[in-house]
Amino acid sequence: MNDIRALVFDVFGTLVDWRDGVAREAEAVLKPQGYALDWLALADAWRGEYQGAMEEVRSGRIPFCKLDVLHRRNLDRILPRFGLGALDGETRRALNLAWHRLDTWPDVPAGLARLRRNYLLAPLSNGNVSIMVDLARRNDFPWDAILGAEFAGDYKPKPRVYLSAAAAFDLGPQDCLMVAAHSYDLKAAAALGLRTAHVARPDEDRRGRCEVAPTIPVDIAANSIEDLAAQLGA
Amino acid sequence: MNDIRALVFDVFGTLVDWRDGVAREAEAVLKPQGYALDWLALADAWRGEYQGAMEEVRSGRIPFCKLDVLHRRNLDRILPRFGLGALDGETRRALNLAWHRLDTWPDVPAGLARLRRNYLLAPLSNGNVSIMVDLARRNDFPWDAILGAEFAGDYKPKPRVYLSAAAAFDLGPQDCLMVAAHSYDLKAAAALGLRTAHVARPDEDRRGRCEVAPTIPVDIAANSIEDLAAQLGA
Repeated sequence: MNDIRALVFDVFGTLVDWRDGVAREAEAVLKPQGYALDWLALADAWRGEYQGAMEEVRSGRIPFCKLDVLHRRNLDRILPRFGLGALDGETRRALNLAWHRLDTWPDVPAGLARLRRNYLLAPLSNGNVSIMVDLARRNDFPWDAILGAEFAGDYKPKPRVYLSAAAAFDLGPQDCLMVAAHSYDLKAAAALGLRTAHVARPDEDRRGRCEVAPTIPVDIAANSIEDLAAQLGA
Repeated sequence: MNDIRALVFDVFGTLVDWRDGVAREAEAVLKPQGYALDWLALADAWRGEYQGAMEEVRSGRIPFCKLDVLHRRNLDRILPRFGLGALDGETRRALNLAWHRLDTWPDVPAGLARLRRNYLLAPLSNGNVSIMVDLARRNDFPWDAILGAEFAGDYKPKPRVYLSAAAAFDLGPQDCLMVAAHSYDLKAAAALGLRTAHVARPDEDRRGRCEVAPTIPVDIAANSIEDLAAQLGA
């Protein structure tokens, strides 16, 4: 692992708590309008449309568009299920910004600050640049660059997303460590030659639908970004 | 100017001193090998190939490639003029990194730190991501994202480079202020609706080949990034 020069990070679930954050922001927008519903169920339903929407792009059926656009389409799709089919456009736009206002897991800012001393750091997320910028401002993520889907013009786990990040840093895949809480992401990175670190996030989905341990071989298994920094000697 | 949300910056000449830096780095690489030559003349000759190389991409005659690649081609082209046609590949690679090791003008870090409190900040340079990352690390430039040529897949002053930066921030062109020491850059930005700030850099080229004042109408004319911050009330 001594050759590693850059760490690239999945963000939703790995660095920030999307489920509680989307539920909280949806409540903040809709409760003042008199709505009462299961806010976590809304977050889960919205996230449930995530992979299918990106697959439309990955498969080539539709051209690349940024995740904010897919999030909005997915929102429009699920709102009728919650009796919200009549929401106006302005409210929908406000709801869509929930993904820009998510909170970090508590170990992340201190862990990234330690890692930044020894490595280049970038998000390698399916989220677009403006989401990454807003999350970084909110949570003090010290990125060197915003890489990932919008930079690559495609969505993970397509190879281009990982390879374009390494190339942007003038590095080979083997010089980069992909950090994620999801094994499908690490599996795709490893197949291209990146090194891999799994960070367990048992609180990502308290329904028990998240990984407490990697399901594939990884170079590092950690339980926080601070633990990852310690294992890397940073 | 109250609507401005993001400031995007030219870098070579506007934020960093490319001429003295390239001369110094070339001397650091070549002098230990026994070479003695006019280092500033080498920097000027190298920069002299800059626009022509980018025009090959802008015109569509060659596909986009990052500036490091164009810099290397330009270096290979000029070395014989300095009796350096026999330099080995490793030395050429070391010389090409000169553009990653340029020093900031002294007013820039403090000015950007002030501006960052009120605005999103990004380089909008023809330099590639790794050059921008290395210059930011060296000089404490607090970027929110690295935008510009490599993100857009084309070179300034092509419209796509400016428009892709505004779009990445989810902003319209009128919400962005382009900051540059070169009127051709500001002219292209203004034609697309961006606001413009000229920063005079009389020391960019002490042969007198730089602008002491803008040659076109601009929204702000400043003599440093700290002056720009003061004029914006930041």
